[in-house]
Amino acid sequence: MDLKFFSKPPLADFVREGLRPDAGLIFRQLFDTSGSSTYTYLLGDPVSKEAVLIDPLKEMVDRDLAVVNDLGLKLKYAINTHCHADHITGSGDLKAKVTGLQSVIAESSGARADVHIKHGDVISFGADSNVINLEVRATPGHTDGCVSYVCDNMVFTGDALLIRGCGRTDFQGGSSEKLYDSVRTQLFELPDETLVYPAHDYKGRMVSTIGEEKELNPRLGLKKTKEEFVEIMSNLNLAYPKKIDESLPANLKCGIDD
Amino acid sequence: MDLKFFSKPPLADFVREGLRPDAGLIFRQLFDTSGSSTYTYLLGDPVSKEAVLIDPLKEMVDRDLAVVNDLGLKLKYAINTHCHADHITGSGDLKAKVTGLQSVIAESSGARADVHIKHGDVISFGADSNVINLEVRATPGHTDGCVSYVCDNMVFTGDALLIRGCGRTDFQGGSSEKLYDSVRTQLFELPDETLVYPAHDYKGRMVSTIGEEKELNPRLGLKKTKEEFVEIMSNLNLAYPKKIDESLPANLKCGIDD
Ligand SMILES: [Fe+2]
Ligand SMILES: [Fe+2]
Repeated sequence: MDLKFFSKPPLADFVREGLRPDAGLIFRQLFDTSGSSTYTYLLGDPVSKEAVLIDPLKEMVDRDLAVVNDLGLKLKYAINTHCHADHITGSGDLKAKVTGLQSVIAESSGARADVHIKHGDVISFGADSNVINLEVRATPGHTDGCVSYVCDNMVFTGDALLIRGCGRTDFQGGSSEKLYDSVRTQLFELPDETLVYPAHDYKGRMVSTIGEEKELNPRLGLKKTKEEFVEIMSNLNLAYPKKIDESLPANLKCGIDD
Repeated sequence: MDLKFFSKPPLADFVREGLRPDAGLIFRQLFDTSGSSTYTYLLGDPVSKEAVLIDPLKEMVDRDLAVVNDLGLKLKYAINTHCHADHITGSGDLKAKVTGLQSVIAESSGARADVHIKHGDVISFGADSNVINLEVRATPGHTDGCVSYVCDNMVFTGDALLIRGCGRTDFQGGSSEKLYDSVRTQLFELPDETLVYPAHDYKGRMVSTIGEEKELNPRLGLKKTKEEFVEIMSNLNLAYPKKIDESLPANLKCGIDD
């Protein structure tokens, strides 16, 4: 891989740390031990202590809050990549437990939330001296309301791009054609060394890179045409998700019981 | 809290590569999806492509080799932190599948291996221009043959120090007194920012720091005396490990069926 570090947008935390010991990015990846193999991501600003969670799960809220508290952080946003069909979002429980916390999801998801975002928006948190930005990129196809979040040298892809795979496209307004275009135009345009942090992995892998997925993703890699991808996706014959009947209605309401 | 929790995404390698295109460290943390909640670590040199696995599992060898091959790496060592009682090491299967691979474990473990290491040894791999060193620190107490490996700003602690916990001390030559001394003299002497990568976590947490564990470990934190720790450990009333009767004899032979 021919890395072009200096063409990358903002400085990676590793470098920022070295240059500014008072700044940086607190980052923790957390795995769901309750069964859905979901990853939740904690990002925090060490200066102001403001933090966000990406794709928290209802079942893991207490674990997440323990990590947040241990690190002395204050949660500002519970951010969802999309309206999940396999688990209930932790947004509702987090709102009940953390005063002032706001839930975030794409407008196009059709789900209820405190903040609705769309392509091109930037979610910011942290101190003025150490603002952390999440750039919103619309990546529909798994669902019509899927977005990815770019932060420094990382991208949180939800179910749009998984490690050597991708989310299914056969319900929730899914479209293989749209997913192919999303991945090609929104994700594969990122620098090769961008770290890919997905919403799931079922083999215990935790991270990939855009370069790897371009080369190695068996469904969506650069060698695959859109026609091949559509064909692959139409032959998956996946089972109906176990928790969809409870998850979808709950997630459309931000995980809050009325 | 004044500690610097600069935990960053584990791939410092890409940034380092960017800064020094001839150097860096490839790093992947991998989670056991077969039930033991074990973490396996892949460390590789991007120059020579030499790599090692720390604590591979028999059940996950094919997954591990796929990651290794995807990244274009060649495995030199399968390194164990100790003789595990909860799963069978992948060392034997890896030796059968990877020509020239050598298994590594502490001499004090009493287990068979190609290379026996002891406190103060350094395991080296990688190109002359980018040597990667694992410094061996004896950290007995969970078992009498436990070691930790220090590499750059990371320490692989096996079951000696877990996130907010530690391994049990009630069999395999375990000793609460020894474990307390090991953690205090060998691990807590590392810089606070050192990333702690344990052999397990049962709550889906993936990394901690020495600073956090000094302040927050409920068994072994700085506020606990040795007497308090011994008392805590003697009252755990843990069940007999499910897989110990198959794991221990196998692991004493490096996971190889005679
Ligand atoms: Fe999904
Ligand atoms: Fe152990």
